[in-house]
Amino acid sequence: MITSATNPKLKRIASLLKKSAHRKAEGVFVIEGFKMFMEVLAQCPERFEEILFTEAAKNKMVSTFGEPVIEGLKYELVEEKLFEKIAETVTPQGVLAIVKTPAYNLSDILKDNTAKLLVLDNLRDPGNLGTIVRTAEAAGMSGILLSEGCVDITNPKVVRSTMGAILRVPFVGCERLSDELLRLKENYYGFTVYATALNGSVVFTENKYYGRCAIVIGNESNGVSPEVLAAADKKIRIPMAGKVESLNAAVAAAVVMYEVNRY
Amino acid sequence: MITSATNPKLKRIASLLKKSAHRKAEGVFVIEGFKMFMEVLAQCPERFEEILFTEAAKNKMVSTFGEPVIEGLKYELVEEKLFEKIAETVTPQGVLAIVKTPAYNLSDILKDNTAKLLVLDNLRDPGNLGTIVRTAEAAGMSGILLSEGCVDITNPKVVRSTMGAILRVPFVGCERLSDELLRLKENYYGFTVYATALNGSVVFTENKYYGRCAIVIGNESNGVSPEVLAAADKKIRIPMAGKVESLNAAVAAAVVMYEVNRY
Repeated sequence: MITSATNPKLKRIASLLKKSAHRKAEGVFVIEGFKMFMEVLAQCPERFEEILFTEAAKNKMVSTFGEPVIEGLKYELVEEKLFEKIAETVTPQGVLAIVKTPAYNLSDILKDNTAKLLVLDNLRDPGNLGTIVRTAEAAGMSGILLSEGCVDITNPKVVRSTMGAILRVPFVGCERLSDELLRLKENYYGFTVYATALNGSVVFTENKYYGRCAIVIGNESNGVSPEVLAAADKKIRIPMAGKVESLNAAVAAAVVMYEVNRY
Repeated sequence: MITSATNPKLKRIASLLKKSAHRKAEGVFVIEGFKMFMEVLAQCPERFEEILFTEAAKNKMVSTFGEPVIEGLKYELVEEKLFEKIAETVTPQGVLAIVKTPAYNLSDILKDNTAKLLVLDNLRDPGNLGTIVRTAEAAGMSGILLSEGCVDITNPKVVRSTMGAILRVPFVGCERLSDELLRLKENYYGFTVYATALNGSVVFTENKYYGRCAIVIGNESNGVSPEVLAAADKKIRIPMAGKVESLNAAVAAAVVMYEVNRY
């Protein structure tokens, strides 16, 4: 049992929870709680790199799911108080794991003739990104392309608010988003790129989203950046009644993603 | 200038920020920040009951909007450090006010022949409720009916995340939601009540939402309660691809509200 705060595994986890650069360098992220643990166990147990339980959590897991659930698993026990110190969540459940970040290939996501790609341009809020990943899976998007300025998708708050969808929705980061979009529009892929904008010329329900298309959602305060807008085929707008200045980014993404997947 | 933490105005505000019962008893709520302050000033200055500024915030207001902005306003200055102690926000802007809670009449909301009512059944998360109020205004809903089990709509976190929409979207609370819905369905009003449910029999895009209708969104974990489901005309479902178990409540509300207001 780990009983010292200076234990190297604990120090590694604390650093991975805090530092995006550390997560990227090692190609891993951290999950917390029973639900996420069971999801990884069911869908991609080969991605576990390190598993920590408190004694109470291990017992609860065994009493809930039976002894076989942890059979063959390599895990370590951690003292309750130490666990509470490193955990990110307010009421930690005593379950925490380091998981390999999946590496997706953009061309795999794109090859479907009716691929619907969600593109995020400098989305900053972790809760918004998590909710968007969750909604993207539900709406049936093919994958997510993130600009360099987006909050790290493996940020613990993002991971938590995806409710497991981060394990299933393909995502890829890119350096120059506008260049990437221009490439997608070329003959080989033939994507149509729709950018959401407050002053968009077309109401989002007026398009037929046939074939391959990409939907761009912008930054919470500034919307889609000018060079990305310039790369888009159409600027679409979600009509707003009353005096609302803008919609929450996760709400805007949801409304458009469900529209796009009618087709 | 208020310089003591035991000042009765400060104590009142601290209590109003914390206690829903206190806000309800006095029929007021608290707003923070320049944006909300300017919205109240522009739309309903008669609702101000108490205004507090820090010296810096007052000066910033005057330099930004000109002297007339605070002309004729009754306000008090508060020492910077005291202000930081009572403010709810992490980076307080030095502006805070007690505002009278608007009292709406349900029959006024209902009388429009095409009234679209959003109904919230035990919605608990302040951020979700705030986002829903903001989206309800944008989508063009006529008003919001809240069950007794909902988080208080005047909760500071809710108020903040409405981004001002709380000043404009009519809302009414009710004691027994299922009874209220049955009343709305009767001949005089003739509402059609649609409850969202994971196992709903009709996909939400398959209805034509003509005439008066009410859309029920349920609790984040448990959905719409059984007695409210029983009072509904139809159970509608948002299709979900992949392995997503449910959508975020604010996302579900948004997707359905934008569908309903196509008609």
